[in-house]
Amino acid sequence: MPAELPGPVHLRDTVLPTDPAAVRQMVASTGFFHPPEIDVAVELVQEHLSRGPASGYLFLFAEHDGRVVGYACYGPIACTVGSFDLYWIAVHSDQRGRGLGRHLLAITEERVAQIGGRRVYIETSGRAQYEPTQHFYEACGYAREAVLRDFYAPGDDKIIYGKVIASAPSTVF
Amino acid sequence: MPAELPGPVHLRDTVLPTDPAAVRQMVASTGFFHPPEIDVAVELVQEHLSRGPASGYLFLFAEHDGRVVGYACYGPIACTVGSFDLYWIAVHSDQRGRGLGRHLLAITEERVAQIGGRRVYIETSGRAQYEPTQHFYEACGYAREAVLRDFYAPGDDKIIYGKVIASAPSTVF
Repeated sequence: MPAELPGPVHLRDTVLPTDPAAVRQMVASTGFFHPPEIDVAVELVQEHLSRGPASGYLFLFAEHDGRVVGYACYGPIACTVGSFDLYWIAVHSDQRGRGLGRHLLAITEERVAQIGGRRVYIETSGRAQYEPTQHFYEACGYAREAVLRDFYAPGDDKIIYGKVIASAPSTVF
Repeated sequence: MPAELPGPVHLRDTVLPTDPAAVRQMVASTGFFHPPEIDVAVELVQEHLSRGPASGYLFLFAEHDGRVVGYACYGPIACTVGSFDLYWIAVHSDQRGRGLGRHLLAITEERVAQIGGRRVYIETSGRAQYEPTQHFYEACGYAREAVLRDFYAPGDDKIIYGKVIASAPSTVF
């Protein structure tokens, strides 16, 4: 069950021309990401603005007082039946601790289920800096499905989290 | 060590305008892939023709008597230091059993090492149909690093293989 909306937050699935700048500012505010990673986050928004949902990148934005304060970016994984990736989830640094991230993730899972998704995957770093992130996903019901040693760099593992959000049809087997 | 070249086979790293059609024909000849998967294989070649190495997709083609008989598609994984994906490797159905796949994979690993790669990842299906593929990667030194249950579809797991192709610099830690 999604948490209650943390205050007067408005959710929006459409992508606006102002979103690339909003995402850049918001992702940078977390202090978690290197400039090349921030560029990737912004590029995914631009991809959606150019190509729409065919880009493979879908979005959920949270607005407060007319300002974007959090967002999730997700999409179907090519050549799979019902597997989705959560590419990004971020909350502006001045809005943390209000349950907004958890709310965004829960609504994203609802959106995925609505369009036939069965599973959501999230990839994150195994570095100590990311322990709060790891705990967040685990608290949201994600299981650690794999650890790829030294994936991002020597000493920087990739953890793949997964969550089943809809049962497979019982008639398949 | 790469195997000896299996007969008069010519290797080429450049991508030609004739390659999308050659890849389509070759990948289809294996009988292994669905039409949407074949389309993806061809799109990666077209991406390289449009954007060059900046596309992130690099290629190795094997030619015999002026005809493309095998190929590998690989590239650096964004936001990693030295991790590469092998996206595709295929040998024309009428050229199988000559060691060409193993040769292509070995030379691909050499190319990856030359441009600073440390690790190569390969993803494949856990379905019984893919057991020869799994055995091929294992025979080439790839370890099964992760299994994601029901990733491709209910009952169709993803196996992630990995191989260390260069030692991490000992000065990093």
